Amino acid sequence: MAAMLKVYVDRLSQPSRALIIFCRVNKIDFEEVTVNLAKREHRTSEFKKINPMGQVPAIVDGRFRLFESHAILRYLATVFPGVPDHWYPADLFTRAKIESILDWHHSNLRRGAATFVLHTTLAPFLGITPNPEAAKEGENLLVRSLGTIESVWLKGDAKFLNGNRQPTIADLSLVCEIMQLELVSEERRDRVLGPHEKIRAWMGNVKRATSPHFEEAHDLIFKMKARLSSAAHPKAASKL
Amino acid sequence: MAAMLKVYVDRLSQPSRALIIFCRVNKIDFEEVTVNLAKREHRTSEFKKINPMGQVPAIVDGRFRLFESHAILRYLATVFPGVPDHWYPADLFTRAKIESILDWHHSNLRRGAATFVLHTTLAPFLGITPNPEAAKEGENLLVRSLGTIESVWLKGDAKFLNGNRQPTIADLSLVCEIMQLELVSEERRDRVLGPHEKIRAWMGNVKRATSPHFEEAHDLIFKMKARLSSAAHPKAASKL
Repeated sequence: MAAMLKVYVDRLSQPSRALIIFCRVNKIDFEEVTVNLAKREHRTSEFKKINPMGQVPAIVDGRFRLFESHAILRYLATVFPGVPDHWYPADLFTRAKIESILDWHHSNLRRGAATFVLHTTLAPFLGITPNPEAAKEGENLLVRSLGTIESVWLKGDAKFLNGNRQPTIADLSLVCEIMQLELVSEERRDRVLGPHEKIRAWMGNVKRATSPHFEEAHDLIFKMKARLSSAAHPKAASKL
Repeated sequence: MAAMLKVYVDRLSQPSRALIIFCRVNKIDFEEVTVNLAKREHRTSEFKKINPMGQVPAIVDGRFRLFESHAILRYLATVFPGVPDHWYPADLFTRAKIESILDWHHSNLRRGAATFVLHTTLAPFLGITPNPEAAKEGENLLVRSLGTIESVWLKGDAKFLNGNRQPTIADLSLVCEIMQLELVSEERRDRVLGPHEKIRAWMGNVKRATSPHFEEAHDLIFKMKARLSSAAHPKAASKL
């Protein structure tokens, strides 16, 4: 029996969820190994043998180890022959456009959203002092990034990024990033996402194309959201 | 006659230089179109028709437009059959490791180095107020990133990243990023690069493998360095 693919994740991490959804949708057998970020399990010397960067997600496929979620998604889409072409199109031009979005993501949507969520919401839980200026900078970059996605990649009646008729790994990665906003207060989330109807419609398309795995992978985020919300309103929570 | 590949660059931008070197080394015919960042030509509506992000580098290949330097390098390595395989290896496992480095780059070496160079050196020339705290954060991330490159990808007597015997697009991208440190003061550059003998040896390997195109593409950076140096020491410069 071949050794099963091992996937090291924490479902509170947005790229971890993208990876889980990708595997489930494409019926890739894998063993999910939870690396609890809150317990700092990603910083142990044991985990650093898997990923020297001490970050999730990471995979071990036989003797092959890999980190960085986009690299992992590309690898899985290529190595598992059952994965439909639309996830990571072999067509040179279609693929190049997807690569462009995946590369853009790092310094724009990801940086903006992660900074915003950290400094508005998660910092106290991670022992970090929230920095309101960083929160504001993160929000500005996030809002600009959402505008870019709408005006550049969701032009016209595009169902998925770049007008593709089915989702790619870029749709999955970016939507999982935006889903992290579930953790911030409703007022903040509305301020950021409210004006972006196309973004919300596109998120719905990605969710439907990957259902029920999308919802299942996000279950923990909604539990965390409830915990954060009761921590912010202890009286209201005690009534529930 | 087929339309020639158009490459929109400013040689003061590190990914622009990587792209020029890649084309020259691989004898890809191209027309270099300079988009002068200091003159804000990247912000014109004319250039935004080429790249809606208003950034260099970008390419136009026939009717096909593309931005993000890593996506462009992947595309060129794939579409031009004369490009040797080592630049972007077709082998699934070797390629996946290269993708991992390319993805890692954005939020680590690039972010660290670009922030450090901006807030120590370039800010006044771009009408930005230098932020010493950002400079320090950039330096810390840069130093951590150099340590990672050495300990993870230049292990043993590796000549190129990941122990490859010939350079990949990741070597080229990362080394061009580090070359941007030529712009900062000698004291700062020594502080950052001094302890990293392996990094310096690797940079030499990439330079030799791409000579004389490497030096030619960096000529403008050395001219800029001289200008910055004489701006910092006007009396010394006036004696030259």
